Amino acid sequence: MFHHVKELQFNARVSKPDPKFARLLLEQFGGGNGELKAAMQYFVQAFSARQPYPKLYDMLMDIAAEEFSHLEIVGATITMLLGPINGELKQAFEDSGLKEMVSGGSASRDALVHQALMNPQFFVLSGGGPTVTDCNGNPWSGSFVNANGDPTVDLRSDIAAESRAKIVYEYLLQFTDDQYVQESLRFLMTREISHFQMFSAHLDQIQPNFPPGILQGDARFTHTYFNMSNGASARGPWNQGQGPWAKGEWTYVEDPIGAVRESNGLTNFQQTAPMSNQEMDEVGKKLGKQRYQEISKAVPKSTNQWSAYPQTGLESPRKAS
Amino acid sequence: MFHHVKELQFNARVSKPDPKFARLLLEQFGGGNGELKAAMQYFVQAFSARQPYPKLYDMLMDIAAEEFSHLEIVGATITMLLGPINGELKQAFEDSGLKEMVSGGSASRDALVHQALMNPQFFVLSGGGPTVTDCNGNPWSGSFVNANGDPTVDLRSDIAAESRAKIVYEYLLQFTDDQYVQESLRFLMTREISHFQMFSAHLDQIQPNFPPGILQGDARFTHTYFNMSNGASARGPWNQGQGPWAKGEWTYVEDPIGAVRESNGLTNFQQTAPMSNQEMDEVGKKLGKQRYQEISKAVPKSTNQWSAYPQTGLESPRKAS
Amino acid sequence: MFHHVKELQFNARVSKPDPKFARLLLEQFGGGNGELKAAMQYFVQAFSARQPYPKLYDMLMDIAAEEFSHLEIVGATITMLLGPINGELKQAFEDSGLKEMVSGGSASRDALVHQALMNPQFFVLSGGGPTVTDCNGNPWSGSFVNANGDPTVDLRSDIAAESRAKIVYEYLLQFTDDQYVQESLRFLMTREISHFQMFSAHLDQIQPNFPPGILQGDARFTHTYFNMSNGASARGPWNQGQGPWAKGEWTYVEDPIGAVRESNGLTNFQQTAPMSNQEMDEVGKKLGKQRYQEISKAVPKSTNQWSAYPQTGLESPRKAS
Amino acid sequence: MFHHVKELQFNARVSKPDPKFARLLLEQFGGGNGELKAAMQYFVQAFSARQPYPKLYDMLMDIAAEEFSHLEIVGATITMLLGPINGELKQAFEDSGLKEMVSGGSASRDALVHQALMNPQFFVLSGGGPTVTDCNGNPWSGSFVNANGDPTVDLRSDIAAESRAKIVYEYLLQFTDDQYVQESLRFLMTREISHFQMFSAHLDQIQPNFPPGILQGDARFTHTYFNMSNGASARGPWNQGQGPWAKGEWTYVEDPIGAVRESNGLTNFQQTAPMSNQEMDEVGKKLGKQRYQEISKAVPKSTNQWSAYPQTGLESPRKAS
Amino acid sequence: MFHHVKELQFNARVSKPDPKFARLLLEQFGGGNGELKAAMQYFVQAFSARQPYPKLYDMLMDIAAEEFSHLEIVGATITMLLGPINGELKQAFEDSGLKEMVSGGSASRDALVHQALMNPQFFVLSGGGPTVTDCNGNPWSGSFVNANGDPTVDLRSDIAAESRAKIVYEYLLQFTDDQYVQESLRFLMTREISHFQMFSAHLDQIQPNFPPGILQGDARFTHTYFNMSNGASARGPWNQGQGPWAKGEWTYVEDPIGAVRESNGLTNFQQTAPMSNQEMDEVGKKLGKQRYQEISKAVPKSTNQWSAYPQTGLESPRKAS
Amino acid sequence: MFHHVKELQFNARVSKPDPKFARLLLEQFGGGNGELKAAMQYFVQAFSARQPYPKLYDMLMDIAAEEFSHLEIVGATITMLLGPINGELKQAFEDSGLKEMVSGGSASRDALVHQALMNPQFFVLSGGGPTVTDCNGNPWSGSFVNANGDPTVDLRSDIAAESRAKIVYEYLLQFTDDQYVQESLRFLMTREISHFQMFSAHLDQIQPNFPPGILQGDARFTHTYFNMSNGASARGPWNQGQGPWAKGEWTYVEDPIGAVRESNGLTNFQQTAPMSNQEMDEVGKKLGKQRYQEISKAVPKSTNQWSAYPQTGLESPRKAS
Repeated sequence: MFHHVKELQFNARVSKPDPKFARLLLEQFGGGNGELKAAMQYFVQAFSARQPYPKLYDMLMDIAAEEFSHLEIVGATITMLLGPINGELKQAFEDSGLKEMVSGGSASRDALVHQALMNPQFFVLSGGGPTVTDCNGNPWSGSFVNANGDPTVDLRSDIAAESRAKIVYEYLLQFTDDQYVQESLRFLMTREISHFQMFSAHLDQIQPNFPPGILQGDARFTHTYFNMSNGASARGPWNQGQGPWAKGEWTYVEDPIGAVRESNGLTNFQQTAPMSNQEMDEVGKKLGKQRYQEISKAVPKSTNQWSAYPQTGLESPRKAS
Repeated sequence: MFHHVKELQFNARVSKPDPKFARLLLEQFGGGNGELKAAMQYFVQAFSARQPYPKLYDMLMDIAAEEFSHLEIVGATITMLLGPINGELKQAFEDSGLKEMVSGGSASRDALVHQALMNPQFFVLSGGGPTVTDCNGNPWSGSFVNANGDPTVDLRSDIAAESRAKIVYEYLLQFTDDQYVQESLRFLMTREISHFQMFSAHLDQIQPNFPPGILQGDARFTHTYFNMSNGASARGPWNQGQGPWAKGEWTYVEDPIGAVRESNGLTNFQQTAPMSNQEMDEVGKKLGKQRYQEISKAVPKSTNQWSAYPQTGLESPRKAS
Repeated sequence: MFHHVKELQFNARVSKPDPKFARLLLEQFGGGNGELKAAMQYFVQAFSARQPYPKLYDMLMDIAAEEFSHLEIVGATITMLLGPINGELKQAFEDSGLKEMVSGGSASRDALVHQALMNPQFFVLSGGGPTVTDCNGNPWSGSFVNANGDPTVDLRSDIAAESRAKIVYEYLLQFTDDQYVQESLRFLMTREISHFQMFSAHLDQIQPNFPPGILQGDARFTHTYFNMSNGASARGPWNQGQGPWAKGEWTYVEDPIGAVRESNGLTNFQQTAPMSNQEMDEVGKKLGKQRYQEISKAVPKSTNQWSAYPQTGLESPRKAS
Repeated sequence: MFHHVKELQFNARVSKPDPKFARLLLEQFGGGNGELKAAMQYFVQAFSARQPYPKLYDMLMDIAAEEFSHLEIVGATITMLLGPINGELKQAFEDSGLKEMVSGGSASRDALVHQALMNPQFFVLSGGGPTVTDCNGNPWSGSFVNANGDPTVDLRSDIAAESRAKIVYEYLLQFTDDQYVQESLRFLMTREISHFQMFSAHLDQIQPNFPPGILQGDARFTHTYFNMSNGASARGPWNQGQGPWAKGEWTYVEDPIGAVRESNGLTNFQQTAPMSNQEMDEVGKKLGKQRYQEISKAVPKSTNQWSAYPQTGLESPRKAS
Repeated sequence: MFHHVKELQFNARVSKPDPKFARLLLEQFGGGNGELKAAMQYFVQAFSARQPYPKLYDMLMDIAAEEFSHLEIVGATITMLLGPINGELKQAFEDSGLKEMVSGGSASRDALVHQALMNPQFFVLSGGGPTVTDCNGNPWSGSFVNANGDPTVDLRSDIAAESRAKIVYEYLLQFTDDQYVQESLRFLMTREISHFQMFSAHLDQIQPNFPPGILQGDARFTHTYFNMSNGASARGPWNQGQGPWAKGEWTYVEDPIGAVRESNGLTNFQQTAPMSNQEMDEVGKKLGKQRYQEISKAVPKSTNQWSAYPQTGLESPRKAS
Repeated sequence: MFHHVKELQFNARVSKPDPKFARLLLEQFGGGNGELKAAMQYFVQAFSARQPYPKLYDMLMDIAAEEFSHLEIVGATITMLLGPINGELKQAFEDSGLKEMVSGGSASRDALVHQALMNPQFFVLSGGGPTVTDCNGNPWSGSFVNANGDPTVDLRSDIAAESRAKIVYEYLLQFTDDQYVQESLRFLMTREISHFQMFSAHLDQIQPNFPPGILQGDARFTHTYFNMSNGASARGPWNQGQGPWAKGEWTYVEDPIGAVRESNGLTNFQQTAPMSNQEMDEVGKKLGKQRYQEISKAVPKSTNQWSAYPQTGLESPRKAS
């Protein structure tokens, strides 16, 4: 259940209306890396985690609730930056104050329209409130949410999402001089860094977490780098030496076209990993069994109930009373 | 600020997994008339209402928070209906229990795939959790949200949204026999009826609320019905007599093509409304002035602050301290 | 069958080209509340109404045909506002007249590009005609159309749609000084008011029309208001007294979290409605039977035919001859 | 102005309901090559054509109006194929007839749901009417419409659109045994062939029509074929001999990588066309001037009016009276 | 397999950064007629062609690879036009050079934001690189790709696609003075003309190629023109005389409404084509058989393999070795 | 420039057609975590990297080219799994072999349609080739691509993208018994693991890489965990102890609502990080300067050229010759 508290999590203020920056800020309201995306991503991931991994669930819901609270801060800031638009639009018969808003009273209607075109939908659609879009007016899409039902995958999606949200705030900060707005943006940006660390710490708790999921790779291809572009090639730990592998070293295929032709489409390609496929499969089987048991112990195949009333511990009751 | 409470608002339970119905239920998770749409619509409308109309704001946020809570109920139900899928997918090396789930152990992999195709993304993308889509897999879109910055418009959008959400639950109820699920759906359907009434009551408080917005129509065309289709025509209070008009009666234009040709594209069309355009404009001007004052009194054109700390009354502080 | 008449329904004119306003006006061509949405919504709703409710069908098709005619007016106005762009783009080798169009001959190419960016697709994609998008360039989407196969729902969707279309024209009127364009916009805005009244009148003819659809609510929850947000709370007919209910009064739940915990997730919640669930079900059963009969009498389960030739009455022949 | 005639252009009938085929047929209702796309494409193209090319306008509007009429036939057929769904959904309290519809009365609710999943939105969203989507449930998009403001381009887009619509009907015909439905589909498919010929004939009237638009190519690159893929290469009139060129022959570049490296990124590439760039530019200038004059003569840069009342000739009045 | 060569196919250069034109150019990067659409369309069409029509496959893949190479040219040009944005955004603490970029050092932050709004996502999302959108910020969509599995349809889609891409380059050329950029655009535009000719030549090789696909039309309706719009009507080879028909002439139906009424919804309409339906069916049957054999000979119904290693001829091995 | 090699990178084969699995596999063709997304993401990221970071560019283009090669493998496999559909659709007049394909010759047309509905667009739109959609038919979207112009962000997006792609292949492997197909899927899944490691290694080379971008957080909020949900709370390294921080420990805010109220919306919140904001800013300034210099040294503000001819080293020429 969600409960709303009238106080914003951070004391959002603006020094004066600024509809142009309001448009830029939409990127974090309804954009692909914005607060709604973050909130919904952690909220949706939490469903699969609820029963088997109640600690992860608790963290995901804490952060999801915080992101909804950030969405509110961003929407409130946009609304304040749009200032009097909503009121002025009611002056349909007067020389609207919208003109004054543009440049001190002397602006022509043409200047007003020019201003309006900076984000027309604030003026002709939303009447001075936020739209559920990015700063180019594209509607938020459910496809922004990444939730794949595996913590070793989902947490990595979350670390990346926080990274993107952070850089967007960093860019945005360079486009406003309003110290109140800057203060709010810095708060929001900082929280992305904090969440990044929370997700990292949780991922680190899950061992093994590489490769994501259960299945290990095909030993013939894991440690191979194909040089798919011509000319001078860069070498480094991503294609030579041990790189981030626990065991084994990179094999660098200088001429992939030749290699593919000679190996019957890689089916006869030489193994490069330090473990055999059989050994890898053993790892996968063992891990799969363990994860399966964790989940199947917690998720009943018959009657199920989501919450206890009251909910006193972390775990759900699993069975309807 | 949003706060999350681990107990669901309603005690959602399922009698047994049912991935097919889970797919149908997605319509109310990420569909155009679903809980996320409702929650976001009222939440976004609330921004424009915050300062000028704090009572409306309070109601919109109460209902928005309830709709987020309903979204959680729907997501929880879908997750429980998907039951063991998430766990079984970890059995990558075994004869997966997914088969058993289909038809008692004897199902071939072909039957499993057939089942999977009922909603492939539960199986190959979300790993057994909800997706932010409708029941056909279309992602939720920010364009579902209607928020136009005018309470006489927004509340009508909300009444219609609740009507659609209600009928979708009514249809859904016919596709499950699970009494626990039926109980949850009935709760959710009932709340749409309650919200419908709340929005109606609030709209009724705002007077005048017709026509929506400020401007009255052009008196030549308000009371006119154009018979744009041929043949036998239906007559009723929507095109004859007084209908829902306070004053005046419908004018029925039997032959619109002829009328358009004769009136130089309706520019010489005879007035049909009981008031002159001048009288109408007077109404509009007066109303516009009133609404403008309500808003401009509450929304500062300079420094602004969203919340007081603590927030003890309904109204926002309007000025940064 | 649709027939096209070369005269516009309203004599659309422009005083001079104005590509900026053309962009704003796109909101009513391909936007979510625009003429194409309206036309398609009523047209699609009409299919379900055709056989069981021929009077409703007649009205929906009259209005749909008028909205298609309005779409044509909007498109024609946009095209005239874009004026010479199409021709100038043919001057690929000359110093294009596009420059002159911007600011009297002295404009640099940079100014031209600046102008173009106001809506780049008029210049580099459509070559000076309308695009099927809103004013931010988002393509029209089939998801804008609400048609749920129940007149008590559909007509409410239509009332809301007309409300939104009306307010968008009201906003648009404040962004042009061109009297010809204003006159066309006022005509279009007025017709939204007229259609609003037609839909209201028709909805009022259908009794009962509340709640929408067939099923009544669960008596325990219909009359309940949950105070889902903290602090000072607003009270009014939407959460106290009788409000819009025929019978019974609102129950206000001050502390929903407590109530949920104590009532085992509301399953033990006290009934607040003045009728029992059994009584409510009786109402629903009776109504369902009646509506079922209306429809099943009109829609054959076997051979079916849409039109008679010639169609002399309102009803379709129902059986193939 | 559009006028609606209650008779369908073609006498659409069905032998019996068939919801599965109804879903397939959605591809031509709201799909990317369907009737709405065609109708809107020609309708939108017609705006730019209205004043400079009234004969083209007349043809485009004739065909657009016919496509809207076909959209109605497709929607009517889908509705009849969905038969009693709308009525049965009103039987919310009874053992719904939906079951009988599936397989003669003995079907379990599970079978009903299985059937529903064939297109869930017919059952839980539209209540037995068409949705504005393709057969996979994707909403129709304004981006389906191609209108670029140049008849030599637009007519080619139309020929291609008709080709795609034709093949989709051809495919669809193989998935129904209902002779009434087949008859309607054959009519619709045939009309795509007819329209294809109309567009071809009109394009042929415009001379020159190749290359589309005004500008001729860069003589160094027009007649060149780059062999961008390895191994055995196919030769034919598309890369050797004269092909469809009025003058000159194809140059086949066997080794494009080498050619690019040697010619400083093709900037020193040898000319292969039979005309010099200077000659080409002469052609372009002359053509641009001609087209510019055709358009600018017809489209006023000042006051403009779309229709005459009554409209007696093909041309629009061009000036507001 | 794709191989990347570091040299661009054409030596793309810019004289100086120009973020405004960069935005316009996005139309050809991620727009509906841009290079990604072209590349993906031919690439996807090639799959169906691979086994039955290896020569067509070779041509489609040659052109697809060239279009991917053009996509790279467009992206490189956009990146160079955005010049120092990416670097300046790293100056988060300094008075960013972004200001200088706008107007020589004296620009206020307001001017910077104004500039940013020309395409906000270059500044706050992509950090100075291209986005996979059109010039209005709409993301590229898989629905842009037309591939219907029939060469007589696909090649016509390709001719139309090249026509649209050509006109967009023609329009774009009028919005930049940078001679380097013009040179690249002219190269790209020219190649659309070349590809147009390749597709035309290939289509011409396939006989018969009209109507597209297999089925011939219904002889009653192929040669008929319905005059669906009122008033003065244009006549020409698209609705009178022989037009582009091999045999037979157009029948012009002056009054389609009357004709429909009299012919029982056209079911009794008089045949107008010079061949009977029976003769037409004979043509279709023969052609269907031929095409079926071409394909079924090449595509095995059992084990299949895509490539030979090495691939020495045009044809795929068809059977796994 | 891209070059196409007719041999697939991996020897893709199928044992027999299987249209159902073909539909599932679409998830990796045009889905949000599929091969096209991966290819386009690295390709687009490479533009910003080209001049300042040529080694990163080399790696991104190697992997992008490999992902395009994987896209080809997936498309080829889907096409082979669809087997004879394309040919059978040409049998428009015969009892199509499509029936036999379903179930050995005895299948009714109804069974055929049922089969078709598994993915209708293979049958009525693409004619037996892949569509650029996910397995639910949603078109690929440019919004899938994450490219933010900062390697410390982009590489994290890439690690997450590879994680998701890996788990989707892991899930898919459980839905086919075809050993040839399994072998191809394992190859593709393994390569996601390899790419994951390449991106990790490259990210590790960039120091510092945390936080992503330049700006450090606000010291008051970096180390804070807000307990935004009620009841029993989980503790672990993500909210207690040092967690992944280099310096400092987590501060756990048990009651965030109280904390917000008392700290005036967190503006008076106590600092929790071990560094002052001033120290943090020093770090940011130094890093910003360094990154700015790296980029501005490589990206000219005036004339620019992308490639050298021939390109012999890693770096681009930076100046037009």
